[in-house]
Amino acid sequence: MAFIGIRAGLRRRVLKLSPPALLASFYLVVVLTGGVLLMTPWAQTGAVGPLDALFTSTSAVTVTGLTVVDTGTDFTLFGQAVLLVLMQLGGLGLVTFAVFVLASLGVPVGLGQRLMLREDLNQSSIGDLLQLVKTLFSVALGCELAGAVLLAFVFVPDHGWAEGLWAALFHAVSAFNNAGFSLWPTSLMTYAVSPIVNLVVPLLFITGGLGFVVLNDLYTKRRWRAITLHSKIMLTFTLALILWSWPTFAVLEWTNPQTLGAYPNWWERVTISWFQAVTPRTAGFNTIVTGEMEDATALMTMTLMLIGAGSTSTAGGIKVTTFAVLLLGTIAFFRRSSELHLFGRSLGVDEVMKVLALTVVSMLIVLVAIFVVSTTHDGPFLRLVFEICSAFGTVGLTMGATPELDTLGRCVVMAVMFLGRVGPLTLGFFLATHAAARVRYPPGRVFLG
Amino acid sequence: MAFIGIRAGLRRRVLKLSPPALLASFYLVVVLTGGVLLMTPWAQTGAVGPLDALFTSTSAVTVTGLTVVDTGTDFTLFGQAVLLVLMQLGGLGLVTFAVFVLASLGVPVGLGQRLMLREDLNQSSIGDLLQLVKTLFSVALGCELAGAVLLAFVFVPDHGWAEGLWAALFHAVSAFNNAGFSLWPTSLMTYAVSPIVNLVVPLLFITGGLGFVVLNDLYTKRRWRAITLHSKIMLTFTLALILWSWPTFAVLEWTNPQTLGAYPNWWERVTISWFQAVTPRTAGFNTIVTGEMEDATALMTMTLMLIGAGSTSTAGGIKVTTFAVLLLGTIAFFRRSSELHLFGRSLGVDEVMKVLALTVVSMLIVLVAIFVVSTTHDGPFLRLVFEICSAFGTVGLTMGATPELDTLGRCVVMAVMFLGRVGPLTLGFFLATHAAARVRYPPGRVFLG
Ligand SMILES: [K+]
Ligand SMILES: [K+]
Repeated sequence: MAFIGIRAGLRRRVLKLSPPALLASFYLVVVLTGGVLLMTPWAQTGAVGPLDALFTSTSAVTVTGLTVVDTGTDFTLFGQAVLLVLMQLGGLGLVTFAVFVLASLGVPVGLGQRLMLREDLNQSSIGDLLQLVKTLFSVALGCELAGAVLLAFVFVPDHGWAEGLWAALFHAVSAFNNAGFSLWPTSLMTYAVSPIVNLVVPLLFITGGLGFVVLNDLYTKRRWRAITLHSKIMLTFTLALILWSWPTFAVLEWTNPQTLGAYPNWWERVTISWFQAVTPRTAGFNTIVTGEMEDATALMTMTLMLIGAGSTSTAGGIKVTTFAVLLLGTIAFFRRSSELHLFGRSLGVDEVMKVLALTVVSMLIVLVAIFVVSTTHDGPFLRLVFEICSAFGTVGLTMGATPELDTLGRCVVMAVMFLGRVGPLTLGFFLATHAAARVRYPPGRVFLG
Repeated sequence: MAFIGIRAGLRRRVLKLSPPALLASFYLVVVLTGGVLLMTPWAQTGAVGPLDALFTSTSAVTVTGLTVVDTGTDFTLFGQAVLLVLMQLGGLGLVTFAVFVLASLGVPVGLGQRLMLREDLNQSSIGDLLQLVKTLFSVALGCELAGAVLLAFVFVPDHGWAEGLWAALFHAVSAFNNAGFSLWPTSLMTYAVSPIVNLVVPLLFITGGLGFVVLNDLYTKRRWRAITLHSKIMLTFTLALILWSWPTFAVLEWTNPQTLGAYPNWWERVTISWFQAVTPRTAGFNTIVTGEMEDATALMTMTLMLIGAGSTSTAGGIKVTTFAVLLLGTIAFFRRSSELHLFGRSLGVDEVMKVLALTVVSMLIVLVAIFVVSTTHDGPFLRLVFEICSAFGTVGLTMGATPELDTLGRCVVMAVMFLGRVGPLTLGFFLATHAAARVRYPPGRVFLG
């Protein structure tokens, strides 16, 4: 690497600063390349302007799924294939992808790349990283192929062999990577009560949203007692969030004639509620018109979008584990324990400080974005907030504000999608490289209540 | 006290649990007494129902200022006097009040009362508490009287001697206690560009909002180097927040014909911006129609309302110091210092944990309240969120939703006002009585980004 040979102090400095910046630059390069490809006449039918193409590329690489054009009709098959590759790159992690390709071609993976990989996977030890990458690649491609085959049973009868198979593959990849892109303007509303779609698609995006650490854990250990603390928290809280949001969605929307009320049978309503309860974290498909939800349901959905899914996953948001530490830390405080412990392990100050920093930065990004967009945008406030939460959680659900945004608004949403995807990844770096304080200050007291 | 003589373990338990519960009960009793008094025909002209009376009493005791009736015309002079007493009780702190009265009557102040006083003032050492109470009483009454005299110069010419003097006293007490109650349905809009009102009223509520610890510090030490870390943070951040919100309000509203645009002169617009920039933390008077603000301005105002003013003050919200620790903790994390230090002092894990708990609980209260009210309320989402933020920060600014709320909505707003005022006070107790963990767990790791 270029910086080997430079004196130790500087090298440590470059090592410290570079990986997050490099990772962000890589994502940016892919976004720009994708945008340029989507601008070409081979990729689109002429309805997609330069800013629209860049927006779509950002949305695909950050696996968000917010759109300003119609994916199924405004892009050609080539354009859709570009989107598919962008989603896969963005979802599995660019660096993961690069390192895997290099390693399988026999190219030795250097320290710099390994450090970036570590970053992209939010891992703090470099050992066994390549093995992890191989495992997650097998799991990802296996899941996507299996999903595509199952979805083909539904899509082929409706759309014919060629279009049906392409739709099955596209939606399977989009689902596993939590990208939320659909070839149809009404997303999956046509299949709102299809049993296969309601099982396969959520299974794909929940699996993808658990994160590779959890998948690797489950893949190699297969027993509850053996898996890591991180996996235990992820699985428990994912289940808890589903068990909370599923019945709540059903109760809030049961008689809304624009959503569940349009379906006469109770099992249809329960099925749709299931899908809407899991899609905010952070899949982004919808089987009802999101903009017709009640205000209370929209609020619940926004909360779920901000929480997102798992670290080291295809999801955005502050992540389930951050939410868990926030909640458990609060409970620990009220129970007057000076330590935070769960499943028989304790969490240190570093973790609590990181949760604090991550939450504050996330809330600041969301607040500033809403503030900036609202200075020039005149639509209903709820829809604007919903859209920004959707962008930050890289969810892609929409109540209709995104296509109406002006240029400033679209640029802000693009920035928020990028920060929502890349920000937390790079933030992970700071914990690993935490330095000890050089100067110690006498303790002070502040009144906070 | 009743529990002296019971064995030590139980006594420590009662001492631990009781003060917050007792404090909350005391506030509740005053709210109910006030509500009953306001229900009587002596207090009102007949337009105030039982729920309205209870709402007004809650609003006064929690020094919020949200109203569902017209304070100036629906209540008699006696009713207004009751409100004045309720504001003074709620603002200065009930227990402070009780202890001061008892002590000045020569009644010895027992340990139990001292503990509650400690609670109400958010102090962790009992020493010098009585002295502090005496100082703050002198400061409070002095400020209120001086304010009333100055305001009389404006109000007496407009309303005659009797009504003018009463209005001057009422608004001075309301301002110093950050209560936000006005005798006029348009609050202070008539005096939007009056120099005296724009100096005296904000001076009163900013002073009251600094908190008694800061006031006592300034009163006894009078030099920057000598005052506590807490006072330094309070003064610095209060100034910073004013310097941020004043020009921002002016820029956002400058050409809005419903607010600043209605005033032709630039100095009038600057004056009104000054008032609107300081009133959200947490005075609650207004000199323009709050409901006509731009969405972006409303968002900024909501943020300021949630931050509130100082600990141990007449204000609500998460408090300026909590906000400061949130921000500085985040900056410290990014600068990779494992300790949080400011003005040459370090803050411990306990403080960070408390900030985490306080922020999470506050956000949960606000979220749950908006969620519950939105299930039955159909108005614009922004106005509802604004109203709940106003209630939690005990601010009292309104965009018009409160009078339109149904019974459920009003009960939720009452609960939020109560929690916004009493909650953080009682939360302060938990830090002081933090116990060391009895069981130590091995350290665990969670991926958070
Ligand atoms: K998505
Ligand atoms: K107030």
